[in-house]
Amino acid sequence: MRLRHKPWAHEFLQEHPELVVTTAEQVNKNWGKRFGNDQPLHLEVGTGKGKYLSDNSIKYPGVNFIGMEMYESVLATGVQRALFKQPENLAFIHGDVRYLMDYFEPASVETLYINFTDPWPKKRHEKRRLTHPDFLELYKQVLVPGGTVQMKTDNQGLFEYSLSSLSTFGFSLKKVRLHLHESEEAEENVMTEYEEKFYAKGVPIYFTKAVRP
Amino acid sequence: MRLRHKPWAHEFLQEHPELVVTTAEQVNKNWGKRFGNDQPLHLEVGTGKGKYLSDNSIKYPGVNFIGMEMYESVLATGVQRALFKQPENLAFIHGDVRYLMDYFEPASVETLYINFTDPWPKKRHEKRRLTHPDFLELYKQVLVPGGTVQMKTDNQGLFEYSLSSLSTFGFSLKKVRLHLHESEEAEENVMTEYEEKFYAKGVPIYFTKAVRP
Repeated sequence: MRLRHKPWAHEFLQEHPELVVTTAEQVNKNWGKRFGNDQPLHLEVGTGKGKYLSDNSIKYPGVNFIGMEMYESVLATGVQRALFKQPENLAFIHGDVRYLMDYFEPASVETLYINFTDPWPKKRHEKRRLTHPDFLELYKQVLVPGGTVQMKTDNQGLFEYSLSSLSTFGFSLKKVRLHLHESEEAEENVMTEYEEKFYAKGVPIYFTKAVRP
Repeated sequence: MRLRHKPWAHEFLQEHPELVVTTAEQVNKNWGKRFGNDQPLHLEVGTGKGKYLSDNSIKYPGVNFIGMEMYESVLATGVQRALFKQPENLAFIHGDVRYLMDYFEPASVETLYINFTDPWPKKRHEKRRLTHPDFLELYKQVLVPGGTVQMKTDNQGLFEYSLSSLSTFGFSLKKVRLHLHESEEAEENVMTEYEEKFYAKGVPIYFTKAVRP
């Protein structure tokens, strides 16, 4: 993820409360009220520029999609795009995943996506990986019974770590794919921005779908 | 695995009870008595020609290694080799893994190896894969608490299936490696006969170490 500072991003995000939640009080954990319906919630952590969620929100109008991102400059790009498309079933949170439970009721999210997240390869940065047990504990809390974590990455080390971390925590790896685009899951796969580039180069994309303990 | 029929194999195996167990009664589940000591037991299912176990038995004299194989012609080659080396901490079982518990006390094996086993790629043959839940149930019974299954394969489909099957059954994937020979586990890795050929060609070897539920 290239982080280019955008001085206008902070103010821009504040100016679009219809699409971006910048404080937990704005939503008060009541997403049904915010969306005006009780469609299932799908959450992407580290949503980046939001293409994945944006495309999904159009493809699946019967699901409410929420993207969480801590970097304002990155999120602002996604919000700009989404404003153009004006999907009613899409929202963003500007916030840190560590405070996930400030925004959601326990057992309220059906699917949680982790796509092409920072691998933090150094051992001393392990706690920053979005599949560290500290994060998995939050995902377990926020997911409904039977809810799933779905992860995609091109990073071998992160994938190895994540399979081990998920399984040791008690998640069941319902699906594991070492080359997503050559698997039966390719057909309904929505690609992220990064994934499109990797796919064009023939880089294998790793995928897992893990069921909550 | 190339299966070349050896008409002499059946008789040959019968003639070497000091190395090959051909009926459960021969050992009566008492491996301590058979080996003459209480060293930990490591078991390889589908041991093939037995090079892996044979090399291990020399490298780790403080462990008793047992290889189980149902094909007489394949096993006979391993036994021929082992006779030459005469390791005291090595034994073979001519038998089907489905009857594993006829040969072992529950919670008696420390480590169970599954190396380059037949992938049985067709869905209708799933029950024959050595990581099918029916087999995992046997491994759970035979392994000591904290005991591990260690698996190596070059087959992507089998590896994906096995990670999912192990984790869904309740095994914890303590380690996952998508390229064993480029990982830190490479150093102490003992190669099988097949693995040496794949390694020479640069084919990635998948590896997992999974802890018993």
